[in-house]
Amino acid sequence: MALIVKKFGGTSVGTIDRIQAVADKLQQSRKNGEDIIVVVSAMSGETNRLVGLAHAIQEQPTPRELDVLLSTGEQVTIALLSMALEKRGCPARSYTGGQVRILTDTVHNKARILDIDVASVRADLDAGRIVVIAGFQGIDEHGNITTLGRGGSDTSAVAMAAALKADECQIFTDVNGVYTTDPRIEPHARRLNRITFEEMLEMASLGSKVLQIRAVEFAGKYNVPLRVLSSFEEGEGTLITFEDEGMEEAKISGIAFNRDEAKLTVLGVPDQPGVAHKILGPIAAANIEVDMIVQNIAEDTATDFTFTVHRNDYKKALGVLQATARELKAREVTGDDAIVKISLVGVGMRSHAGIASTMFEALAKEGINIRMISTSEIKISVVVDEKYLELGVRTLHEAFELAGESDSK
Amino acid sequence: MALIVKKFGGTSVGTIDRIQAVADKLQQSRKNGEDIIVVVSAMSGETNRLVGLAHAIQEQPTPRELDVLLSTGEQVTIALLSMALEKRGCPARSYTGGQVRILTDTVHNKARILDIDVASVRADLDAGRIVVIAGFQGIDEHGNITTLGRGGSDTSAVAMAAALKADECQIFTDVNGVYTTDPRIEPHARRLNRITFEEMLEMASLGSKVLQIRAVEFAGKYNVPLRVLSSFEEGEGTLITFEDEGMEEAKISGIAFNRDEAKLTVLGVPDQPGVAHKILGPIAAANIEVDMIVQNIAEDTATDFTFTVHRNDYKKALGVLQATARELKAREVTGDDAIVKISLVGVGMRSHAGIASTMFEALAKEGINIRMISTSEIKISVVVDEKYLELGVRTLHEAFELAGESDSK
Repeated sequence: MALIVKKFGGTSVGTIDRIQAVADKLQQSRKNGEDIIVVVSAMSGETNRLVGLAHAIQEQPTPRELDVLLSTGEQVTIALLSMALEKRGCPARSYTGGQVRILTDTVHNKARILDIDVASVRADLDAGRIVVIAGFQGIDEHGNITTLGRGGSDTSAVAMAAALKADECQIFTDVNGVYTTDPRIEPHARRLNRITFEEMLEMASLGSKVLQIRAVEFAGKYNVPLRVLSSFEEGEGTLITFEDEGMEEAKISGIAFNRDEAKLTVLGVPDQPGVAHKILGPIAAANIEVDMIVQNIAEDTATDFTFTVHRNDYKKALGVLQATARELKAREVTGDDAIVKISLVGVGMRSHAGIASTMFEALAKEGINIRMISTSEIKISVVVDEKYLELGVRTLHEAFELAGESDSK
Repeated sequence: MALIVKKFGGTSVGTIDRIQAVADKLQQSRKNGEDIIVVVSAMSGETNRLVGLAHAIQEQPTPRELDVLLSTGEQVTIALLSMALEKRGCPARSYTGGQVRILTDTVHNKARILDIDVASVRADLDAGRIVVIAGFQGIDEHGNITTLGRGGSDTSAVAMAAALKADECQIFTDVNGVYTTDPRIEPHARRLNRITFEEMLEMASLGSKVLQIRAVEFAGKYNVPLRVLSSFEEGEGTLITFEDEGMEEAKISGIAFNRDEAKLTVLGVPDQPGVAHKILGPIAAANIEVDMIVQNIAEDTATDFTFTVHRNDYKKALGVLQATARELKAREVTGDDAIVKISLVGVGMRSHAGIASTMFEALAKEGINIRMISTSEIKISVVVDEKYLELGVRTLHEAFELAGESDSK
């Protein structure tokens, strides 16, 4: 029998009715012959409620105690879902992270999984039970409760699948898969049947927030086939897996974008070794995360240096950069917080020349000026004016012929 | 330093403000030099909320999963109280029942404590921490979460005190001690400074529901001095302890009563061996609990048999009894569900004659007819018509001179 790990997030178990619906779905999968591990999150809203209680007491809640508190959210869900399964005549047993023994490091609130003891879980599976596990939580070597940070339930599911060598890890969400781009912007966006781990990482970090990025990395590292599908409708979803022959044909898998970018430039910085560090060091020290970085030699002795930050950090970054520019005797600092990033993602890019020129040509035809370019092995990102976001995404979606019915490879 | 176990119930930790107030109180006790273990219940209302969720899914929730669910209630409280202590600069550490390793039997929903591992808790005390423990819960030998049943937090506290050989176990409630009788009926009721375990057991089972009866038994068995005091006001409360010389003087400690009684009588049962069993067997089989039992020989060959049940079970018991009476060829079945029980309780009763006659005389003077009498070593109970409850209690309170200022033995 196929061994499947299934993860249901907070929205999917957000009410009693939804928990009942998840139980129905699991009962059907069981009848279809699957051995099942379910990993669940806290009911939607519950984690926020608990965080609210903590903050009402302590501005900075003691990390160890915050984990004790938050871990109750998933514990409620595993009990309720197990009851719903038992009611349907499906033998089930719930496990907290500590009861499984999901061993983590001791970093409260963002622990990392070190090891999983699968003996008890395996025994329950062998006894024909559905095993219901609290996501997001573990236990450290001293028996302290730990949590993996928000969204950590995806990681729990993938880690369980890896430890049990499950045939597949299915992440049930409120979308029915990974799309070529956001359907709210491009109505012809198509659900992908397959995507590679690398592409998924680029898509996720670029704003197509379907899966927690750590979970995708984890799945890639341990070669766990990962499937994203809908809790609420039938369908195959999107399988995230390693590149295979059948996938070679698609050059581009999707178009990601990020609305929340702002761009800062120092012009005419006297060129000298270590200038990049001198510019970005103070930015990092101010706890501002930098996304894209581009450096050009403008003149013989001076350089122009551009980078992007989250739009919320724009003003703060501008202040820091102006101070740095004075020190470095740079000519000028400019900036723009009305820009967006659009990225083509696809493993096919490696073996196909001409992607970049097709991209730039398509944008130029629509009069969209490219303000910045950055590339990686499987991604080309451009920065354009904010007003061109929708037009740019749709133009590229058409240029690379991404629309149409989902393929059935 | 004195080692004190302090237990706070659901009302005492029912809101964020009350949790803050408990933390203030603990901080003060710590400054006064106490080593402190705190045992807490779920915030008031929380257990009912969780039970409601369970019943929305399963009419009879799976016992194992109900324990997983309910145990989250106390887990929330231990985290919040530990945060409140840390905020005040009092180092604190929370423990679930499983984390302490409060080992219980495997009877879900009403487990009994078998053993407590105090090593970790002791280490935290030695390190100057306040230890905050989830009441009501434990773990069985297989690592399953168990609960002790409603009110089990009192038992958790006493068990911790026994295991740690604590100097005292303090139960904080919404009353400031044990009274000679219910002050709502007798305004002159006096708070007792001391009461024996045996008296407390009789008071508790008779309706003065201050403490869970199992906790009192447990404290008596392990000789843990138990103190009942108020969460909300200052005061010494009532110490429950073994009989000592200073206590000999009081003949009567208090007057308990029970409003919810109903009385059933079979008249003219042909007397034969085993008749009591034949009458009560079917009652027990119908899951009806019997309180008082009185049997009189009425004639040479027949007996009258009377017992009391909870008023809610009256109709059901009457039906069962009528069927039995026909089988036994008894003359008649009568019953009354407008009766109450009033009891004098006191260890002094053992060594002082005349208590009963004083009691009966006082009641007779007020025209209160006694319908039934039952006695034990430290208790005399009478059944009277419901309308005489208040008058009866006040009459006896006065007859035995129970009013006045709390003594300061």
